[in-house]
Amino acid sequence: MTDNKLPPEPIMDIAHLGHLEMLTPKFDQSVRFFTEVFGLTIAAEKGDSVYLRAYDDYERYSLKLTASNTNGMKHVAYRTRSPQALERRAAALKGTPFEIGWSDGDVGHGKTFICKDPDGHIIELYYDTEWYEAPPELKPSLKNQAQRFPGRGINPRRIDHWNGLAVNLSECRQFFEQYLGFRLTERIVLNDGSEAGIWLTATNKSYDFAYTRDHTGVPGRFHHVTYAMNSREEILIAADVFLENGVHIETGPHKHAVQQTFFLYVWEPGGNRVEVANAGARLVLAPDWKPITWTEEERKKGQAWGLKTIETFHTHGMPAVVHK
Amino acid sequence: MTDNKLPPEPIMDIAHLGHLEMLTPKFDQSVRFFTEVFGLTIAAEKGDSVYLRAYDDYERYSLKLTASNTNGMKHVAYRTRSPQALERRAAALKGTPFEIGWSDGDVGHGKTFICKDPDGHIIELYYDTEWYEAPPELKPSLKNQAQRFPGRGINPRRIDHWNGLAVNLSECRQFFEQYLGFRLTERIVLNDGSEAGIWLTATNKSYDFAYTRDHTGVPGRFHHVTYAMNSREEILIAADVFLENGVHIETGPHKHAVQQTFFLYVWEPGGNRVEVANAGARLVLAPDWKPITWTEEERKKGQAWGLKTIETFHTHGMPAVVHK
Amino acid sequence: MTDNKLPPEPIMDIAHLGHLEMLTPKFDQSVRFFTEVFGLTIAAEKGDSVYLRAYDDYERYSLKLTASNTNGMKHVAYRTRSPQALERRAAALKGTPFEIGWSDGDVGHGKTFICKDPDGHIIELYYDTEWYEAPPELKPSLKNQAQRFPGRGINPRRIDHWNGLAVNLSECRQFFEQYLGFRLTERIVLNDGSEAGIWLTATNKSYDFAYTRDHTGVPGRFHHVTYAMNSREEILIAADVFLENGVHIETGPHKHAVQQTFFLYVWEPGGNRVEVANAGARLVLAPDWKPITWTEEERKKGQAWGLKTIETFHTHGMPAVVHK
Amino acid sequence: MTDNKLPPEPIMDIAHLGHLEMLTPKFDQSVRFFTEVFGLTIAAEKGDSVYLRAYDDYERYSLKLTASNTNGMKHVAYRTRSPQALERRAAALKGTPFEIGWSDGDVGHGKTFICKDPDGHIIELYYDTEWYEAPPELKPSLKNQAQRFPGRGINPRRIDHWNGLAVNLSECRQFFEQYLGFRLTERIVLNDGSEAGIWLTATNKSYDFAYTRDHTGVPGRFHHVTYAMNSREEILIAADVFLENGVHIETGPHKHAVQQTFFLYVWEPGGNRVEVANAGARLVLAPDWKPITWTEEERKKGQAWGLKTIETFHTHGMPAVVHK
Repeated sequence: MTDNKLPPEPIMDIAHLGHLEMLTPKFDQSVRFFTEVFGLTIAAEKGDSVYLRAYDDYERYSLKLTASNTNGMKHVAYRTRSPQALERRAAALKGTPFEIGWSDGDVGHGKTFICKDPDGHIIELYYDTEWYEAPPELKPSLKNQAQRFPGRGINPRRIDHWNGLAVNLSECRQFFEQYLGFRLTERIVLNDGSEAGIWLTATNKSYDFAYTRDHTGVPGRFHHVTYAMNSREEILIAADVFLENGVHIETGPHKHAVQQTFFLYVWEPGGNRVEVANAGARLVLAPDWKPITWTEEERKKGQAWGLKTIETFHTHGMPAVVHK
Repeated sequence: MTDNKLPPEPIMDIAHLGHLEMLTPKFDQSVRFFTEVFGLTIAAEKGDSVYLRAYDDYERYSLKLTASNTNGMKHVAYRTRSPQALERRAAALKGTPFEIGWSDGDVGHGKTFICKDPDGHIIELYYDTEWYEAPPELKPSLKNQAQRFPGRGINPRRIDHWNGLAVNLSECRQFFEQYLGFRLTERIVLNDGSEAGIWLTATNKSYDFAYTRDHTGVPGRFHHVTYAMNSREEILIAADVFLENGVHIETGPHKHAVQQTFFLYVWEPGGNRVEVANAGARLVLAPDWKPITWTEEERKKGQAWGLKTIETFHTHGMPAVVHK
Repeated sequence: MTDNKLPPEPIMDIAHLGHLEMLTPKFDQSVRFFTEVFGLTIAAEKGDSVYLRAYDDYERYSLKLTASNTNGMKHVAYRTRSPQALERRAAALKGTPFEIGWSDGDVGHGKTFICKDPDGHIIELYYDTEWYEAPPELKPSLKNQAQRFPGRGINPRRIDHWNGLAVNLSECRQFFEQYLGFRLTERIVLNDGSEAGIWLTATNKSYDFAYTRDHTGVPGRFHHVTYAMNSREEILIAADVFLENGVHIETGPHKHAVQQTFFLYVWEPGGNRVEVANAGARLVLAPDWKPITWTEEERKKGQAWGLKTIETFHTHGMPAVVHK
Repeated sequence: MTDNKLPPEPIMDIAHLGHLEMLTPKFDQSVRFFTEVFGLTIAAEKGDSVYLRAYDDYERYSLKLTASNTNGMKHVAYRTRSPQALERRAAALKGTPFEIGWSDGDVGHGKTFICKDPDGHIIELYYDTEWYEAPPELKPSLKNQAQRFPGRGINPRRIDHWNGLAVNLSECRQFFEQYLGFRLTERIVLNDGSEAGIWLTATNKSYDFAYTRDHTGVPGRFHHVTYAMNSREEILIAADVFLENGVHIETGPHKHAVQQTFFLYVWEPGGNRVEVANAGARLVLAPDWKPITWTEEERKKGQAWGLKTIETFHTHGMPAVVHK
């Protein structure tokens, strides 16, 4: 066997989605939503930000919520598999138009390489991280869990994925494949051959993030962040909790045809879309997974059980695009 | 940064558990159990074996069931991440006492490197695999699924993990860590310092296999194979299906303290223990996961919600040990 | 206390919904749907009809499916609480425009009093019934269950309720309240004061049937029959089974605001709407339950979690109205 | 048909279980358990008692918790179907050894007839009741629900049933059948012909209470009270909430063979046993339900899926029997 006949081996340098920084123009209401209704725990506060965590996130936090005059996502952060992996990704990006540079990190994580994707979303890569240490009153009964199950609000288990809007999905996909080693698992290709949705993963989850085409032409926008629930029933219960708390339920619960995720979308008080989801036992274990391509016609069938995609799902991006 | 101060990077060469070969002295009854009650589909038949699959296994099969005069496991097979990864693992094992050698493969997979662990379990490594192609009547409605949901029996989604019995767990653990790159996620350490249970993974599942100490001193035995269900409710429904079909329910449904798996154990007609399980949204995403160690005292508390571990769980291994 | 100051005591003469007779122009396909996909069991066959049952219906059957040149409902049957109760209801209806008269019954039940409601739906009342006796191969493991859990298709537990279309709901409501003792639990009242939907019960279920206003002005039509599932998760699984079998999923799964039922609607091959539903732990236990009235404005909010009611839910009645 | 040949019609005078009064020697801890962990709401306080309610109990409360020097049940209360029904039951009991007499009622209910069963449990019967009026901050989003879903602790929906211990079950059963019109649905009969467990209902629930034989010979003791959950998954989540809060989980979650209830038993801080349960879609709709009799041998099989009944289930009654 000669190696030069074989396809190159996969880049395995990104370990997983770490956290993202969400902007909100209604900071106090957003904090109250995420803690009392959504059931996250405050793990740190600094400046205009609170750092929030789900009960089984192993890192200190998974959501940095920052007061701002708008909504949207300020940055997303991925943890690398090793210190060496971080250096390799930085080296690959060095000198490209995507490089921003090194920083000392933030609350909870150290040395960080910052870059941007072709659509302008800010991406942080880091390895050194602070493992969450629960204070005595939040110690779990089972030592293989990061924190006590809250029993408050909807109780998501961990951050799962996020979804960005982007103008040119093919460019973005290539960036994530080539520079960061993400693998495409599913996508939507329109009749004109252009990609309208892409789902990529660095793990055995079938996606760690997705990009959807932004029809406004405005770059760098945000669509939603998703937390994982243990069961579909927990999502149905969450729907009742949202209903009782006057939270805007945008669509769901239902099952996506793409990726088969059971989903529920709501808007937090700052206008950001937040999803809770459950994948059942579905994982992408194949190292050579063949991307699934959905056609325009197939997408017109709606979601898995026939629900039509709601209009705002296509029009409500963060921040809002101001037409002058 | 100098690389020589850093810990070595993880071996990422094993992609996932592929299948195992289960022996049964009651072949016809076992086939009937796995197809009609358990809900697997026959994907091939050859010689004394049938090759069975769950509806979302992407490979052709995950269970090779072989007629024999005893029960137990004949071999287990793991798929590597790439052809290169297969060569690397073979090279690492070459010349060690664990090497058995290359074979041409079997139904569904090609070139295979065979070895054994320190306890004598036979392990096959392969990369070339046959992706399952559903015949027309078994085509799924959603193209990101391997096969139509059967709606027959208990309908597990995919193979999840297996559990072996072994005499010296520390030796086995070191073998899997050093030669195959599995990572220890949890273990039981007795008061005398010996390991009584080890759980290892090559994926983001918190374990792909586990070994439990075999008190009989007989090497190479089998404890159970596990299929993943989409929800805990499906496992409760499965309990009713097993009850109605006269299947011996050994213990469960309940939640393991170790790994937090929601479980149900039954014995198939040939006497092999089979588990159905659901992990909720729990995954091990940390590339540097710190193994959880459970003490003898902690294990005495029983399972997560207090169920005492049933006696046969410690005494019923396959094949049975004959005391002369 | 003097009795003449007290409100009259409730009529407790109807025990529960027994069965209904559904017409289908595609008999063979409908039979196949109800047995293989829906998971009912054939309990009898006679003439142009098969008699079908869910696994925990205590009577011999709950659905009489009859070949016809159209779809719709031929009659609905309620069991009375006692022989005396049957006589009382017959006596009350005797000589009214609603009386049709006595019959000897049908497969599975004896002496029957037949009447019609103001909209012309045919109603049978009976007490003598044949308890289902499972043949050996369908004996359940638990003797408090009528029949073995099938593990085939979607496995509903028992018939739950049915829904008729009617032109004048207030007249129908008064008929059911006065002559049969049903109690109104919820209703929709439009801004013009007319009733657009009524839900009535004779049991602790919050409804045994509902009537929805028929905008076509054609009397006696049918909207759907509903079977009860043990859990919402079973309904989500049923959605997948329907999807895989090419069954038309009309709407759901979702939660009704009215009655809070978790629902899923499909069309069987003959065009009849069939629902599977779960009420959670909700029961109407109050003997003096105060009917809930929903306004036009409240109904515009859609279902509990915001799903808009699908257009065909208002337009697809059985049999279809032919416009000449 | 001549009425004198027919069996007498059923007594339909009891509408449902209303509430019970639980004694606790650890009042503050018990209150904290029932509000913060169990998720009940305080609806009233008076003297040494707090009155607690589940979110969809339609009456003001379902549990009166009273400080005492022991644990156990002080009384149980059933609501009658009508004022006339209350008078009829009082008249039937008047002059019997079971009569205690009329009272003016308590918080939340009016005129009450008090009696005791042959084992000495105190039973209150009432019709006039106070419907719960949620304060603004506890108003539900759906007007057919009594109170907002709490999203705090385990969130049971409503009181379901209770279980007493009694020395002579046959005498008790006859008392409830003859004087109150309860119907036996299931029972355990030992090889010596004596009844060891009885389950009776006045509703379509398969039981509103059960009595288990008290082997100590001490009369009037209490075994447990049960609240209904919407799903089995909610009970599994409740098990985690109990685990995290250090609550003693006695047994479960599992499925009873008798009545098929999915159950979980815990001990509240005062030592009283509390169950959360789900019946799936199982109801007893037959007005002439034939009681199921379980034999000694059948009971030895354990619960539905094989769990052996835990020893304390037979030995832990309230209050404890002091052996002198």
